[in-house]
Amino acid sequence: MSKYGLHGCLRAKEGNGDSLAEILIKASQIMNDAITCHLYLVSRDPDRPDDIYVTEVWDSKEDHDASLAMEGVPQLISQAMPMLEGKPTGGQALEILGGKGININ
Amino acid sequence: MSKYGLHGCLRAKEGNGDSLAEILIKASQIMNDAITCHLYLVSRDPDRPDDIYVTEVWDSKEDHDASLAMEGVPQLISQAMPMLEGKPTGGQALEILGGKGININ
Repeated sequence: MSKYGLHGCLRAKEGNGDSLAEILIKASQIMNDAITCHLYLVSRDPDRPDDIYVTEVWDSKEDHDASLAMEGVPQLISQAMPMLEGKPTGGQALEILGGKGININ
Repeated sequence: MSKYGLHGCLRAKEGNGDSLAEILIKASQIMNDAITCHLYLVSRDPDRPDDIYVTEVWDSKEDHDASLAMEGVPQLISQAMPMLEGKPTGGQALEILGGKGININ
């Protein structure tokens, strides 16, 4: 069965990239309790340190969407929102086909 | 220590997305032998079935670059090249900061 992926950029206001990344890493720790979450990778563009990326793999889009309401997540979203430059674009949906490094069977 | 990531799209000629994905999944199986490869995820844009994405995490850019010469990989690249629509863009480099789902410590 293929999985649901999402790759998106959150652009922080100038100088806020580190703080935004910290919040997203806290979010990834909450996702440790979500068995339908197979990947929640936080990264940044080395040339644009305020562009923080999140790459996620979930059993389904519904599982991803439900994660936004997990305990502690709405609070992290509230902390992150004022750091963002503009509105988040929502990211790029991906149909996960296979590969190495996560268990997607 | 942060890791080196790469997220890139390979656009196949119309109708060649499945074949290209198969080749990339074969490549990911070769990467099972590369201990510096932490993620090699093959996915597609659900709205553009010929756009195949590869998301990789490596110890370093040098480890990634060296993987292109691993046994069997040049052959897979030769098989994939004629399927591509235009030249691959090279993808987006990412500095991996943390997250759930792969061991990046």
